[in-house]
Amino acid sequence: MSDVEKAKVAVVGASGYSGIELLRILLKHPGVDLTTVTSRQNAGKSLVEVLPQFKAYPGADGLKFTSPSVHELAKSGIEFAFLALPHGVAAEYAVPLFEAGVKVIDLSADFRLNEASVYREFYDKVHPAPALLKEAVYGLPEIRAKEIANARIVASPGCYPTSMLLPLIPLVRSGLIESNTIVVNSMSGVSGAGRSAAIPLLFAECNESVRPYGLPRHRHLSEVEQELTIAARKPVKITFIPHLVPITQGICTTIVAELAPRCTSMSQVEAVLEAVYRNAPFVRLLGNGGFPDTRHVRQTNFVDIGWHHDPRTKRLVLTSAEDNLWKGAAAQSVQSFNLMRRIDETTGLL
Amino acid sequence: MSDVEKAKVAVVGASGYSGIELLRILLKHPGVDLTTVTSRQNAGKSLVEVLPQFKAYPGADGLKFTSPSVHELAKSGIEFAFLALPHGVAAEYAVPLFEAGVKVIDLSADFRLNEASVYREFYDKVHPAPALLKEAVYGLPEIRAKEIANARIVASPGCYPTSMLLPLIPLVRSGLIESNTIVVNSMSGVSGAGRSAAIPLLFAECNESVRPYGLPRHRHLSEVEQELTIAARKPVKITFIPHLVPITQGICTTIVAELAPRCTSMSQVEAVLEAVYRNAPFVRLLGNGGFPDTRHVRQTNFVDIGWHHDPRTKRLVLTSAEDNLWKGAAAQSVQSFNLMRRIDETTGLL
Amino acid sequence: MSDVEKAKVAVVGASGYSGIELLRILLKHPGVDLTTVTSRQNAGKSLVEVLPQFKAYPGADGLKFTSPSVHELAKSGIEFAFLALPHGVAAEYAVPLFEAGVKVIDLSADFRLNEASVYREFYDKVHPAPALLKEAVYGLPEIRAKEIANARIVASPGCYPTSMLLPLIPLVRSGLIESNTIVVNSMSGVSGAGRSAAIPLLFAECNESVRPYGLPRHRHLSEVEQELTIAARKPVKITFIPHLVPITQGICTTIVAELAPRCTSMSQVEAVLEAVYRNAPFVRLLGNGGFPDTRHVRQTNFVDIGWHHDPRTKRLVLTSAEDNLWKGAAAQSVQSFNLMRRIDETTGLL
Amino acid sequence: MSDVEKAKVAVVGASGYSGIELLRILLKHPGVDLTTVTSRQNAGKSLVEVLPQFKAYPGADGLKFTSPSVHELAKSGIEFAFLALPHGVAAEYAVPLFEAGVKVIDLSADFRLNEASVYREFYDKVHPAPALLKEAVYGLPEIRAKEIANARIVASPGCYPTSMLLPLIPLVRSGLIESNTIVVNSMSGVSGAGRSAAIPLLFAECNESVRPYGLPRHRHLSEVEQELTIAARKPVKITFIPHLVPITQGICTTIVAELAPRCTSMSQVEAVLEAVYRNAPFVRLLGNGGFPDTRHVRQTNFVDIGWHHDPRTKRLVLTSAEDNLWKGAAAQSVQSFNLMRRIDETTGLL
Repeated sequence: MSDVEKAKVAVVGASGYSGIELLRILLKHPGVDLTTVTSRQNAGKSLVEVLPQFKAYPGADGLKFTSPSVHELAKSGIEFAFLALPHGVAAEYAVPLFEAGVKVIDLSADFRLNEASVYREFYDKVHPAPALLKEAVYGLPEIRAKEIANARIVASPGCYPTSMLLPLIPLVRSGLIESNTIVVNSMSGVSGAGRSAAIPLLFAECNESVRPYGLPRHRHLSEVEQELTIAARKPVKITFIPHLVPITQGICTTIVAELAPRCTSMSQVEAVLEAVYRNAPFVRLLGNGGFPDTRHVRQTNFVDIGWHHDPRTKRLVLTSAEDNLWKGAAAQSVQSFNLMRRIDETTGLL
Repeated sequence: MSDVEKAKVAVVGASGYSGIELLRILLKHPGVDLTTVTSRQNAGKSLVEVLPQFKAYPGADGLKFTSPSVHELAKSGIEFAFLALPHGVAAEYAVPLFEAGVKVIDLSADFRLNEASVYREFYDKVHPAPALLKEAVYGLPEIRAKEIANARIVASPGCYPTSMLLPLIPLVRSGLIESNTIVVNSMSGVSGAGRSAAIPLLFAECNESVRPYGLPRHRHLSEVEQELTIAARKPVKITFIPHLVPITQGICTTIVAELAPRCTSMSQVEAVLEAVYRNAPFVRLLGNGGFPDTRHVRQTNFVDIGWHHDPRTKRLVLTSAEDNLWKGAAAQSVQSFNLMRRIDETTGLL
Repeated sequence: MSDVEKAKVAVVGASGYSGIELLRILLKHPGVDLTTVTSRQNAGKSLVEVLPQFKAYPGADGLKFTSPSVHELAKSGIEFAFLALPHGVAAEYAVPLFEAGVKVIDLSADFRLNEASVYREFYDKVHPAPALLKEAVYGLPEIRAKEIANARIVASPGCYPTSMLLPLIPLVRSGLIESNTIVVNSMSGVSGAGRSAAIPLLFAECNESVRPYGLPRHRHLSEVEQELTIAARKPVKITFIPHLVPITQGICTTIVAELAPRCTSMSQVEAVLEAVYRNAPFVRLLGNGGFPDTRHVRQTNFVDIGWHHDPRTKRLVLTSAEDNLWKGAAAQSVQSFNLMRRIDETTGLL
Repeated sequence: MSDVEKAKVAVVGASGYSGIELLRILLKHPGVDLTTVTSRQNAGKSLVEVLPQFKAYPGADGLKFTSPSVHELAKSGIEFAFLALPHGVAAEYAVPLFEAGVKVIDLSADFRLNEASVYREFYDKVHPAPALLKEAVYGLPEIRAKEIANARIVASPGCYPTSMLLPLIPLVRSGLIESNTIVVNSMSGVSGAGRSAAIPLLFAECNESVRPYGLPRHRHLSEVEQELTIAARKPVKITFIPHLVPITQGICTTIVAELAPRCTSMSQVEAVLEAVYRNAPFVRLLGNGGFPDTRHVRQTNFVDIGWHHDPRTKRLVLTSAEDNLWKGAAAQSVQSFNLMRRIDETTGLL
């Protein structure tokens, strides 16, 4: 790997959970020269003072948090900017960076939707940069590798959507399941709710607690339905129930749908999934009868997918597991970076 | 409560998780004289030697585990026997006790099914006492209070079924939901898998792990479909996906179903649930928009039930939470005991 | 218990973790008429809206949070006030209540120290009501039952101190250990840090984390050394290292000290502890070789105490476990209430 | 790293927790050709069938568990054998491998003690291969780098000892602390108890549980006192109290000792630690006032060390954190491998 050319990279908003995992990955990435890490609240402090877990990591000891204006940042010579910022804020950074020719990989929701009107519906605000929506590529590498490679701005998918879309897109696209019968239940680790001081996220509130939330219209529904509609070539609406469970990292997703009449055998399900993911290094098909486990994907970019047929109800059950901060956020965005840099997709991720 | 007459009670199989919680409840129950606690492996030891958490509890310090033959037990003068035994084993005890006139409250699955053939299908063995199936009452107190009060043998429901049946029965019975569209996802604490030495149940295997299992045909499906079929007055088949989550006690269940055409308003849903549970001291209706939390029902006999309408898909989402060892096992069986003794249903449980 | 006369009681500051457990205990206490629960932030809301876990509890459904001025509270007819407030704030309430003849049971640190100067040293502020310090009784019921019974203001001990003082006081008093060699390590559940929105207390920060803190001079040292000095009849200084561990409730404390020359046999240790705690319903002596476990005391008022002799080093190791919110806070304060009311010490606590 | 020459390596006993982490590290290690992974119970199965977390890892998909006799193994052409076996069993493998010229890195306790008589005292059995004890080097790389580099058999230290010896050896050696006053408390994650089906290790037994155990003479005391005695050049006896806490991986250790008269300033403590660890890539000195956290060292080979002076008692408090399976077992043994191979000590570990 020693001959990978390094790109100058900034991580903007590096002290949330996604930002921290981005640092963990990028500090060791052979194709990254991490020149800038920004944080408003920690500006001026050294990286290892704020995040002592990185002390003595290669490259970490010299880094300092800065808080440049977006225009300073745009002119600072960086080639790539990872935005690990809240939605709304991310767009404020993305536009000037994009205009300055910096390639943007945005981990927020700001550029995931094709239509500003849907953004308004689900995020309760006017989209701050609708003109850029057409430029942005929805960065699911297993589905859009080529567009990502050519993109100037990538909207890295949300944690829940990744865990649903990878199992569902091949089956919806092939018409093996009835796309209007999809019911999704997901269980997410608490880091998915962000690193913000809030009583419901305290240890003593989350331990021994399992709870649904976000019904009936979690924000992530919008990007999931957008992508499934594209795959199905007809409008798709799904039911999605997120739950908070007492783990730090991980999402377990369980999807139920009716099999379409054209699906007469489980081998068709397997064939369709195999065809799409045969060469996908991070999708692990566990097969008919396989069960994923969040513990098996912790701190990895893998998504594990299993499935079961229930002949009594003619339904298919798809199950998946991923690390919400890795495949669901930081690592997946690095996977897109690798594609944009035309280096091995797995660089820095295995 | 001091004037409640005490019944002589045995707990058979008192060192598993349900048995331990039974002891916790019965030791303080004003209507119980706990004369016998049995355990093959701990026979001869004092209760507090095996279960030091009970040291200095009222009535616990003098108790010893015994291991009587079932015939000795039947003749020992007990009036009630709680069976906290594995399925198959429970029936071996139930028959002689029943024949000796001891009232039996069985926490296993042995007498929950009306048909021996279904038992064979789901439990892979010939039913050991099919003649008793007609005598046994499925002990869901909120649904069958009168039959339980008159029963000589009560089959206390499983933990998963309780969490599904209480939200579903009123709605299925009233025809407000389409009973052939029901999809259930449940997340159970690890105690639900029993107190047996098995590597998948170790702390280091369960911590940071969320995993589905038991597909496509978990054993508890059989009793759920039996009871829903009774409620619907037509055959009901459902999809049920259990998951293991890293909590000790608790089940969170999420149910999705299509609304029937006759359901034109959420107030109908509320009215039907209110009508059935208005006087049920342990069912807490959280209303339209309410979310349950396993932490809020820990060590209680409550079931919390909330619901949401998804107008985009015309589906109803029902959510419930209970303690799998309390309302899902030990406490619910004591609730049946209270009914059988014609004392206040909440005695010893609030 | 039905003939216990009820006292009118207020809980001031009822939405922190100690306050919530106080409510859990007092709502069921046969000698309590809980007339007032106060909370500045929740004033006007019903108890069960803020704390849904209490819905359908006996007596809870009608209660509302109020926010009376301390003078309104003093004149409201209450006979007892439990103060579950931060230190400093508690004293502001205690003085007018005390002057109005209300008996005060304070769970904060404000009245635990005999000397205002020590308060200033350890709490970095001038004591707000030094005149009351002489009135207040340090409320460790196993050590000061008679003084508590006659007290008008009780300073209920801290969670860490309780776990240390109960094992240590008899041994220090008897001179069996060298009081200048005491080293204490404690591991506390996260609820001990309070119900405040702070990033270090988030689930994702505490899970998989064990960390010492508070060195070299944790605030609780002051009351521990005060009480050990009284027991030893000479100045005692100890080393105390608190740790945060990922459990919700519980403190495990391990104490090491050198045996004094006069201690020539472990039977002396046992005899001294037995003599003091023979009739203490909440102290469970596990004996020489016994090990406590926080899980065994969860949601109880018990303190479990074991000990071991290390003949290689001539040291004694004392170990204890308690629930930091029960014996370490709420339940212990109710134990003092029972003593003050001259009713059975265990009322409402077993 | 691409020009590191690969050594043929076997992992013997690869399905316990240390073995699994060894696989995780060695599969990616550029200097390792992992030719053999053995497991009696899993012989014949593929690695990824038994350990699905390794599916799609580089090099994992082709591997199978085998169960060769030790003589077959000795002749199989391997150059290094990592033994991740129970004590007693490890020696059975070590002797023939050693005699066949295979370099042995033993993670068990079998070769950590210099005297067979101490082994007998602490492990209750006659040492199976006393002749090899003189050959074996106690493999603490920060203390014995040169001897390890030249060793033919390395006894990799235990998890608890590593967390104590690294803070203590420099201070004991320099005489800054009184070596006869050392009191150590450690809190270990449950994986430290091994991957064996035992009820006390179940999730439902460990969650919400903190408990001391192993008093008064935990087996690891023997190697700690041996190494401290060498450092002090006089006999050292310490008090050591291990605790089990509900985390999967990690050890937090807190050490208290009296300062020796020659220690007149904390800068001496810092100077001594800095002198020993200045060039140690895996020891992170957090300084006077610093606090370690097990979460910060998870899945790393780091040991974090902080310290505090308590002028009131003239004692020093040293605190450390490590991952019990990494620095405390698997990763540390790979660090020794790197030294033996004369490649960068951090290869495969950063």
